[in-house]
Amino acid sequence: MKDTRYDLLGTALVEERIDYTGLELRSHFIRERTGIETDGLIAFIGGCRVEGDALVDLEDAEAGDFIAAERMLHFIGEHFAIGPREGNLRLRLLVAIVRELIEKDITGAGIERRGDDLFAQGRKLTVAISTVSPVSSLMHLGVNIDPAGAPVAAVGLEELGIDPAWLARAVLERYGTECRSIEIALRKVRGVD
Amino acid sequence: MKDTRYDLLGTALVEERIDYTGLELRSHFIRERTGIETDGLIAFIGGCRVEGDALVDLEDAEAGDFIAAERMLHFIGEHFAIGPREGNLRLRLLVAIVRELIEKDITGAGIERRGDDLFAQGRKLTVAISTVSPVSSLMHLGVNIDPAGAPVAAVGLEELGIDPAWLARAVLERYGTECRSIEIALRKVRGVD
Amino acid sequence: MKDTRYDLLGTALVEERIDYTGLELRSHFIRERTGIETDGLIAFIGGCRVEGDALVDLEDAEAGDFIAAERMLHFIGEHFAIGPREGNLRLRLLVAIVRELIEKDITGAGIERRGDDLFAQGRKLTVAISTVSPVSSLMHLGVNIDPAGAPVAAVGLEELGIDPAWLARAVLERYGTECRSIEIALRKVRGVD
Amino acid sequence: MKDTRYDLLGTALVEERIDYTGLELRSHFIRERTGIETDGLIAFIGGCRVEGDALVDLEDAEAGDFIAAERMLHFIGEHFAIGPREGNLRLRLLVAIVRELIEKDITGAGIERRGDDLFAQGRKLTVAISTVSPVSSLMHLGVNIDPAGAPVAAVGLEELGIDPAWLARAVLERYGTECRSIEIALRKVRGVD
Amino acid sequence: MKDTRYDLLGTALVEERIDYTGLELRSHFIRERTGIETDGLIAFIGGCRVEGDALVDLEDAEAGDFIAAERMLHFIGEHFAIGPREGNLRLRLLVAIVRELIEKDITGAGIERRGDDLFAQGRKLTVAISTVSPVSSLMHLGVNIDPAGAPVAAVGLEELGIDPAWLARAVLERYGTECRSIEIALRKVRGVD
Amino acid sequence: MKDTRYDLLGTALVEERIDYTGLELRSHFIRERTGIETDGLIAFIGGCRVEGDALVDLEDAEAGDFIAAERMLHFIGEHFAIGPREGNLRLRLLVAIVRELIEKDITGAGIERRGDDLFAQGRKLTVAISTVSPVSSLMHLGVNIDPAGAPVAAVGLEELGIDPAWLARAVLERYGTECRSIEIALRKVRGVD
Repeated sequence: MKDTRYDLLGTALVEERIDYTGLELRSHFIRERTGIETDGLIAFIGGCRVEGDALVDLEDAEAGDFIAAERMLHFIGEHFAIGPREGNLRLRLLVAIVRELIEKDITGAGIERRGDDLFAQGRKLTVAISTVSPVSSLMHLGVNIDPAGAPVAAVGLEELGIDPAWLARAVLERYGTECRSIEIALRKVRGVD
Repeated sequence: MKDTRYDLLGTALVEERIDYTGLELRSHFIRERTGIETDGLIAFIGGCRVEGDALVDLEDAEAGDFIAAERMLHFIGEHFAIGPREGNLRLRLLVAIVRELIEKDITGAGIERRGDDLFAQGRKLTVAISTVSPVSSLMHLGVNIDPAGAPVAAVGLEELGIDPAWLARAVLERYGTECRSIEIALRKVRGVD
Repeated sequence: MKDTRYDLLGTALVEERIDYTGLELRSHFIRERTGIETDGLIAFIGGCRVEGDALVDLEDAEAGDFIAAERMLHFIGEHFAIGPREGNLRLRLLVAIVRELIEKDITGAGIERRGDDLFAQGRKLTVAISTVSPVSSLMHLGVNIDPAGAPVAAVGLEELGIDPAWLARAVLERYGTECRSIEIALRKVRGVD
Repeated sequence: MKDTRYDLLGTALVEERIDYTGLELRSHFIRERTGIETDGLIAFIGGCRVEGDALVDLEDAEAGDFIAAERMLHFIGEHFAIGPREGNLRLRLLVAIVRELIEKDITGAGIERRGDDLFAQGRKLTVAISTVSPVSSLMHLGVNIDPAGAPVAAVGLEELGIDPAWLARAVLERYGTECRSIEIALRKVRGVD
Repeated sequence: MKDTRYDLLGTALVEERIDYTGLELRSHFIRERTGIETDGLIAFIGGCRVEGDALVDLEDAEAGDFIAAERMLHFIGEHFAIGPREGNLRLRLLVAIVRELIEKDITGAGIERRGDDLFAQGRKLTVAISTVSPVSSLMHLGVNIDPAGAPVAAVGLEELGIDPAWLARAVLERYGTECRSIEIALRKVRGVD
Repeated sequence: MKDTRYDLLGTALVEERIDYTGLELRSHFIRERTGIETDGLIAFIGGCRVEGDALVDLEDAEAGDFIAAERMLHFIGEHFAIGPREGNLRLRLLVAIVRELIEKDITGAGIERRGDDLFAQGRKLTVAISTVSPVSSLMHLGVNIDPAGAPVAAVGLEELGIDPAWLARAVLERYGTECRSIEIALRKVRGVD
């Protein structure tokens, strides 16, 4: 029988620099950039400046806030045909994975996760959001490399001594494994009373 | 990056003879027989005798009917975490695929599909049912090879001159392709107003 | 007790010529044209020219493709409050029904279904797409009558000797019967372990 | 085109006396008694005695309570392929309908609805529960006719001067109309931002 | 352990006059006005004039109708991550609650509910609609205070002698209690066969 | 307005020793033990011995395995009206939380998460499973305190120097906060294209 396997989660590390403005958080951005036809998670490196109407997070928009950093490791994920609750659960898991990988790389890095935010020594390491498009659930996770320009006390991978390319590859692999193992897990149990 | 592909639908042609009694329509039967850990569709050959409490179809049970045939090509499919409506839609597609393959093999076979039943020259070729377990949607499609013992006018693959093993392999491949292409299809469109 | 039946699927053959440009694939187009207040499937005859932003299919849009035919039998379907996976399953069934009816009309027509496309002797007979609106799942199936202008090798009902009006009526009736019988089917089974 | 209408909600007033013990709250009880093949709501008159393991309501079961009345007007409803939240919303609507009909019949009856319970002058008029079977959502609503034997202060239709047969017919018709009009309502709106 | 309770339904009576034009039926309008971060139901008093593109109800839009009243008690509700069927069921319950409270206040008011409309002595007391945004289900219920300008025979709370502020507070409390008790109800039952 | 808050997730640390045999993984076990009427997560301490038919995990059951430990900190969680995919996502988050808390307590503990398992220095610290009941999604997470009797190389909180009662309280609080913040997060975003 011919090979009929399917890529539950396509992943790619985009080599080109992409500055994140918020407009990249749209359906099929992953497809446009990489040709991935399934659910996907991609990583790329670039600046970050999100403000005004591009702010999806109403807490930020209401406060007149903006999101900015000189250089970030960005992750954009897209899962089709799921709702916002599952989308947020997946974002939390993605953020937990980033934390686990950093802690494994640097013992005692003291990274703390509060919901979908990571902090190192009380300073903000990441920004994150999950929302929906008409066809999918989308998420963005930005990990500061150089946090210069951030509106709050922030820290970056550079200062922590972590290689962004290593982290990108490790996260893509771990999140893919996580998604696949969840599908296996929900199929290996009998129901109970 | 290491291979992380996932088998959206595991398929197997079980060589061993299995007589179908209705009790095989249960969650994880596919896993028990083949070790498939994902959604799956398997085929096997064996007798068929379903009666009494083993009848999942209340129309049959109410009428005191039974299902029987000397030898059938059986398909059992299991999709996890989906509901009964999607399960019945998938069964219809599976039955349509069987019809398409027979018609391709034997031009002018005159196979007619009525819902989830196939008829050849007015005689019944198949039995089919879709139901749910606590963890999955399940379906059984039985295609008569030798319909001897059937309670209605019936016909089998033998009389039609169709090789059950060929049909089994073709159906498993086609249904797997169908499932994968549906996943791709729902991810390649933008929404409309 | 007064009659309280409900039309699970309203159907109509629109007599007026409507040229399909892609913009017709929107929520409530069926309602606007026919007054159908439930889920619906309508058929009409007209030209076909879909290009640029009207292309819902990103595969086509990415390739700079267009969809065109001199005259097509169009089907537009709308199911409310369902998601894209169920929408695509229903489109596949609709396409399978078209194939079954053509094959019944012309024995040995040699129509092949590949996903949601039909081919006759290797030439393309149909175009099809399923997508979502904010309130519904929508599908378009166009069957060439006269394929002149198509960007690929194509064939039409005219050449096959099939009456479009007959096919339209037969498809509307069969799809309605299919939808109703699925609802009955999912209600007539007991669950299993 | 032949008639293809579908009964969104089959209803029946069962003439035969049926004493309710709790075991009637099971999938396909409506089908068994009336042959209704769709979602359904039926009414019948009979005694009521539910205790021990037949108590679906854990509040009652934990308290060692029982449910009893000499004669009740019972309603059993079954909706397939929906979850418990929608099931409970439908039960509330059914109870609201009963209240509306009684109030219309007897101006100033002073019926109060608290969740899925009705009270008249502070005495309990009804018992109600919604639960799920493996294939459906089920609900039972019992309206006291003669509340003798009830473990709490209770009142019945007899004392209120309401004809149970009239109420049964009116509720069946009103609930059917409600279900159909909800389906129409959700299909007649455009989405908003 | 610190207090970790969650407001299943935030409610607020907005003191400021807001004239309803239809544009208020949008996602996060409640959040903008009141800061409520959960599902919510708010009430306010103001004029009503909805016409043209602001009409979400296609029945009205098709007929070239408009909705108008000099002064209404408005309710806007938003439930996130639910679909249109549940949204319409909740609207019906909200309307039933309004009716129950008016009837309790004025015995024999003769309020009749037809779907999501209320009538007093055959004149229209309310307008209502449920629709979806990309992130939520939304509903608007307007209860006439002074119906002057309404395009149909209408009646208002003023004429009925009902205090709008009292009704607003009572509805907000009752609907909140209803939502909470539904969540409790679906968690207190065991499943059945 | 009276207080109408709702406990999105009831939590409790059960003081009494409960030995886990697998049978505790059933709907309403939390309710029976603690009276919690909402979704819930409870913790207790006791032995662990799961074998034979009590094994919900078919991987274990197939292998003839058993689960055992002298003393564990057990967590049982129940979320109603959700499916198995969301249930597994929530279990992963719960396991990630346990890891985060241990690492915070003991810098450099070297706890590794693989799916829903935790390992310390390559030895197994936890067992975990998520399944469904007819009314809910259920999960069990057992953290070894004293792993004596475990069928694989295992480690416990005792050896790691972690106070089980502290961990229990911290996990209950953190998971509750996580659940609530997810509900807030999905309500604070606008949709995107």
